[in-house]
Amino acid sequence: MQAPFTSLSTFRDALAAAPGPDAAATQGAQDRNGQLTKPPGALGRLEDLAIWYAGWRGDAQPQITAPQVIVFAGNHGVCAQGVSAFPSEVTMQMVANFEHGGAAINQLSKTFGAKMDVYPLSLDTPTADFTTAPAMTEEEFTRALQTGWNAVDPETDLLVTGEMGIGNTTSAAAVAAAVLGGDAADWTGRGTGVDDAGLARKTDVVGRGLALHATSDPLEALRCLGGRELAAMAGAIAAARHHRIPVILDGFICCAAAAALHKAVDGALDHAVAGHLSAEGAHQRMLDALGKEPLLRLGLRLGEGSGAALAIGVLKGAVACHSGMATFAEAGVSDG
Amino acid sequence: MQAPFTSLSTFRDALAAAPGPDAAATQGAQDRNGQLTKPPGALGRLEDLAIWYAGWRGDAQPQITAPQVIVFAGNHGVCAQGVSAFPSEVTMQMVANFEHGGAAINQLSKTFGAKMDVYPLSLDTPTADFTTAPAMTEEEFTRALQTGWNAVDPETDLLVTGEMGIGNTTSAAAVAAAVLGGDAADWTGRGTGVDDAGLARKTDVVGRGLALHATSDPLEALRCLGGRELAAMAGAIAAARHHRIPVILDGFICCAAAAALHKAVDGALDHAVAGHLSAEGAHQRMLDALGKEPLLRLGLRLGEGSGAALAIGVLKGAVACHSGMATFAEAGVSDG
Repeated sequence: MQAPFTSLSTFRDALAAAPGPDAAATQGAQDRNGQLTKPPGALGRLEDLAIWYAGWRGDAQPQITAPQVIVFAGNHGVCAQGVSAFPSEVTMQMVANFEHGGAAINQLSKTFGAKMDVYPLSLDTPTADFTTAPAMTEEEFTRALQTGWNAVDPETDLLVTGEMGIGNTTSAAAVAAAVLGGDAADWTGRGTGVDDAGLARKTDVVGRGLALHATSDPLEALRCLGGRELAAMAGAIAAARHHRIPVILDGFICCAAAAALHKAVDGALDHAVAGHLSAEGAHQRMLDALGKEPLLRLGLRLGEGSGAALAIGVLKGAVACHSGMATFAEAGVSDG
Repeated sequence: MQAPFTSLSTFRDALAAAPGPDAAATQGAQDRNGQLTKPPGALGRLEDLAIWYAGWRGDAQPQITAPQVIVFAGNHGVCAQGVSAFPSEVTMQMVANFEHGGAAINQLSKTFGAKMDVYPLSLDTPTADFTTAPAMTEEEFTRALQTGWNAVDPETDLLVTGEMGIGNTTSAAAVAAAVLGGDAADWTGRGTGVDDAGLARKTDVVGRGLALHATSDPLEALRCLGGRELAAMAGAIAAARHHRIPVILDGFICCAAAAALHKAVDGALDHAVAGHLSAEGAHQRMLDALGKEPLLRLGLRLGEGSGAALAIGVLKGAVACHSGMATFAEAGVSDG
């Protein structure tokens, strides 16, 4: 399906027009949950997850059979400032690794029965260095949003968006600060593992980007400070909302892109849960700002969508219990 | 395979004779982990899990293809003291539900590709009320340990032990207090959901059991205060160690049974990880005593092995990444 927007302003319209969950399915799922063969509340957060999922799918007894993982890759002009422990070539090398099935996200997608798609985004043309110019023109930004939107299979029933892009914790920190407030040091972390000097350099770079691109518009912040893979994730998350496909958010970078949607339109992430708490220092702060409680806390900081893909298992378990369990009446069990 | 013990003392011998992990496989897995296409440590706890699993399986590049979930069910004489919100008949009704595929543990086992076995243990002959007599004779206790041991398929590669037994949070609290120290109030919780008066009654019952069966022997505590399903879980966890099958511990009741092994033989749970933190109040205290950090914290308090079964997904994801990912050399990726 083609994205229903051709500019930033029509993207805003599409975002604002997105549907909510189905009230009847939500109510039906709540009723069903109360009749299942377990003490009330005994499945804890799995119960809330299943009801939330049912509402978005418009089905009080849904299944998860076709999850999709999409990995977007981009290169960043800001790497010229020496913000990463790895050279930019690694982005392209990792795309080849994704395509050959050798990365962590390939194994996790396979483990949890998700199809996985990879979108390298103009890797030989990095975004502009945001310390000197907007990372993307409006046209480049719109194209990345469209690529993300169009990458979502409307037939999928659960979406994970991941990313690869050397330098992109720097972009994500800058987007987060611009969109959610705070200063550069609040949001800048070690990424793939820079040392103290590298962290100081990153923080300075983020601060310079924020000073250059002062804007109160979250989508403008994403354009000026983000990257193509961040924009594409935002486009995909918006498309999922349009199709009522629940989303599992990944770590710091995915959440930075998502935060721009959250600030652009109230409730724009209601169809999304946080897959995990990343080891990237500012991710907890970001989840707090988004009002999301992570499903997993296992110290991952890889990106690629890995933490969110791992959380597919939790959501599958929740929905399987909800939709597959017998009721007290069906099983002939006394309900206390 | 038949259990290699016919009495409590020969069970102790079997426990003490259990093997440790394979040092060469552990080293091989550590080496492999360092070469995978990711920044060092970026998969967080998944890396430690995969290396631990590899050591126990004696294979530096293992797979998880045949997990087993075993649910043991028992009835408790202490229910005569009014400790549960549900009548004892529910144990048998839930066994029928397990056998017909209608319980949460059935859905979770299916979701994560585990075979599931159910063992009702003399449900029409509850254990003795531990406020008046030892819950089990030595013969009954040994038989339950043997049933648990023999229930483990030596060909399985990951074990979850679960339980069903109205009244068994009371037994578990008493076992925990006897084995790990502290008083009745430290370990007694709301189980399936008793009110304040019920909680006070449970605490009193646990305290009376502790007073009657003062023993410093953890296996004697399990016999006098536990139940057949707790003893069977202990037998199964011991058998898994014998066969070098890694175990995912479930919630409060499973961990109480495991705690008796832990106190009987130092390191008896080295082949086990904690699947989740249960909502049962004292589970955190118990995990602290066992030195285990839970994989999941989702507020489950159902038992049946449900929290541990959900964690099969995490362990499968960890092992899939470890064994399936390309190395830097294989993928032609620069390693920073």
